Amino acid sequence: MSDLRPVFYVSDGTGITAETIGHSLLTQFANVRFATDRIPFVDTLDKAQAAAAKIREAGAQAGWRPVVVNSCVDPALNAVLAESGALMLDVFAPFIEPLERELGMQRQSQVGRAHGMVDFESYHRRINAMNYALAHDDGVSMDYSEADLILVGVSRAGKTPTCVYLALHHGVRAANYPLTEEDLDSDRLPARLRPFRNKIFGLTIDPVRLQQIRQERRPNSRYAQLDTCKREVAQAEALLRTEGIQTLSTTHASIEEISSRVLEVLGINREMY
Amino acid sequence: MSDLRPVFYVSDGTGITAETIGHSLLTQFANVRFATDRIPFVDTLDKAQAAAAKIREAGAQAGWRPVVVNSCVDPALNAVLAESGALMLDVFAPFIEPLERELGMQRQSQVGRAHGMVDFESYHRRINAMNYALAHDDGVSMDYSEADLILVGVSRAGKTPTCVYLALHHGVRAANYPLTEEDLDSDRLPARLRPFRNKIFGLTIDPVRLQQIRQERRPNSRYAQLDTCKREVAQAEALLRTEGIQTLSTTHASIEEISSRVLEVLGINREMY
Repeated sequence: MSDLRPVFYVSDGTGITAETIGHSLLTQFANVRFATDRIPFVDTLDKAQAAAAKIREAGAQAGWRPVVVNSCVDPALNAVLAESGALMLDVFAPFIEPLERELGMQRQSQVGRAHGMVDFESYHRRINAMNYALAHDDGVSMDYSEADLILVGVSRAGKTPTCVYLALHHGVRAANYPLTEEDLDSDRLPARLRPFRNKIFGLTIDPVRLQQIRQERRPNSRYAQLDTCKREVAQAEALLRTEGIQTLSTTHASIEEISSRVLEVLGINREMY
Repeated sequence: MSDLRPVFYVSDGTGITAETIGHSLLTQFANVRFATDRIPFVDTLDKAQAAAAKIREAGAQAGWRPVVVNSCVDPALNAVLAESGALMLDVFAPFIEPLERELGMQRQSQVGRAHGMVDFESYHRRINAMNYALAHDDGVSMDYSEADLILVGVSRAGKTPTCVYLALHHGVRAANYPLTEEDLDSDRLPARLRPFRNKIFGLTIDPVRLQQIRQERRPNSRYAQLDTCKREVAQAEALLRTEGIQTLSTTHASIEEISSRVLEVLGINREMY
């Protein structure tokens, strides 16, 4: 008997919804070790049969009944999947009936809809936002008038991943301005950023953690010295405080948490992709 | 009465799980118009009371009972939220009991766990993968030996967003090689890519769609002419076929779908962040 419990995320689309909720559920059982696998694009009876066989086999090998977190919409496919003998957790089933009652109508089942390209316009916005983030990374561009928000902080405080995440998942045009030595010495925001104060958000980080990150990036450089990191962070925090800019420490925050906080503080309400 | 039904994604963490499943549910009611809002980081009774007041108010204004898709774990917080009078859809509740029975243990509730920084090592992998994607974008770097996969295709076929998505959400080191005119004329993969054939995946795109994308990028350039796009796509598809490389058209696929297919075809099984 394996010590790993087999878990499958099965979907008629990408499987992202199933995996997101499944992952959240599994984190609530921290003492159990799971072996997770995804089976996406299960949109025919043949594929459902193949998936059921794979799940059954994994259960036999592991000596544990598998858990299936399933987001397939078609009842015929679900019936085939259930033949695997796994514990079936259908991520939509418990919510559809109360929603139908509340809205006074039946759902229209459609396969693989949530993460498909439903809305071309919003998809386009998302790609453009991503191109914007990559083009306005590290202060190269001078024009911030089109930015929805501007992240400001010292180099390697977490600005770039956050900008890319905000673009990808919220279609937000997020620019990124790394504070230079000159900015830090002057103790003021650079003049070209001042007109956009209401869309600026500061990121800071613990100097020791910053030192580790920079050390990996440019080993044994002045840039990566702890003294440099301490001085830059202290100056940046003073500057952001002087300018009255809301600031978050990224030291113990995930990209998702940082992004969620930034949107909340700046009052930007965009649907998530 | 507004024609928009108020929907709130409420969470003790980022709200990503609640919004992901909520969005999937709402897409199954395409005829209803919803006004969605998220209330993240509801981790105290005060915040729960403020959230409940906001939800109640939105319902009164809209003339519709709000729908709350909720991922708070703490029953005390949930009781306060329920006082809003909204239809409460708790994304975990239906699955916890069957999972507890199956696993023979109780869950350990922990607030905001799923998208927090639980596992430092895997978080690190993710950030490094993202740096890798940005550094290995558009064929600038010459060394693909560290890549988990390499996306190949003509310029603007969708390689960059896919690489960034794979890095952010799967910690996969995804490099990106745009086929040059020289490559396309030679009808072979460039020599430096050939050793890595088993980790190469091709992206292609409808030439008319490609023309639109390029036109937005560099208006009225030779690069954006339909003739150029048609020729490049035909040559790229021929080259990929000759080299026996699996290829997907991105024309009607979302970034999530492309990423999911690439991982499936290359047999890369990484947990999703």
